[in-house]
Amino acid sequence: MSDKFFEDFKQGDEIRTRAVTLGEPEIVEFARLYDPQPIHIDKAAAERSTFGGVIASGWHVGSITFRLFLEQSPLGENSMGSPGLDEIRWHLPVRPGDTLSIVITVLEARPSRSKDDRGSVRLRYETFNQKRELVMSFIGVQIIKKRPRRQRSNRWGS
Amino acid sequence: MSDKFFEDFKQGDEIRTRAVTLGEPEIVEFARLYDPQPIHIDKAAAERSTFGGVIASGWHVGSITFRLFLEQSPLGENSMGSPGLDEIRWHLPVRPGDTLSIVITVLEARPSRSKDDRGSVRLRYETFNQKRELVMSFIGVQIIKKRPRRQRSNRWGS
Repeated sequence: MSDKFFEDFKQGDEIRTRAVTLGEPEIVEFARLYDPQPIHIDKAAAERSTFGGVIASGWHVGSITFRLFLEQSPLGENSMGSPGLDEIRWHLPVRPGDTLSIVITVLEARPSRSKDDRGSVRLRYETFNQKRELVMSFIGVQIIKKRPRRQRSNRWGS
Repeated sequence: MSDKFFEDFKQGDEIRTRAVTLGEPEIVEFARLYDPQPIHIDKAAAERSTFGGVIASGWHVGSITFRLFLEQSPLGENSMGSPGLDEIRWHLPVRPGDTLSIVITVLEARPSRSKDDRGSVRLRYETFNQKRELVMSFIGVQIIKKRPRRQRSNRWGS
């Protein structure tokens, strides 16, 4: 798949990713490094908790969500980073064996006012499990290069 | 350090973590799994980019931030998870060799209205580098158990 440019994102577009299944070892390994709470890394303690068993770290689910987006919409060297995210919500626990897939909706695509070579794209990420339940959602902004001028001109036949 | 309860968080409290230095291998390893953009994993491409070199994934910086918070304020089995985060902002790039430390401020500590055994704590996380520059910030909510009733009564001498 070729790398996307700013112009490849249009308001209202929906991007759908492949599905991935999370194993318990992966859940525990991530959480040991970054979110070592008993509900994520300690089977017995997690079973005693309100969650009734090990659940994935929210940081892990978010990171997987973003990775699946990039697989589907590679930005390559067109990516100029992200200023931030908003409204991260963990709606339901993600458990070992759950299969996640993402729907990304383009909320807005706006050329930069001050810099002619780039634009910013506002995306809503929605992470679903195998029962089509929404488990996580957030809004993120990506700064992405525009197509090089020659390529842009070509689109108009010049 | 003993696990914190809801009552251990008071509005206005400031929690300061230890500092950690990020190496390039760690930055690249995280990004290969979760954020495989050239600016995070490809030295030559990153040098060509506006960042002028490899920078850490924002998901990585956030995950490290949360881990340092947990080290300083372990919640253990008192943690009942988090409904979400808001206003995640990446203010400055984090580069290999940067040393990060976190200041967490308790914005609000509110007992649950419907459930007597827990409360929610709203925290502002601010991640600084070795030059005391703010590199990342966000607001997060944690649901935390209250002290067991007997321990709570003891505080009032009964």
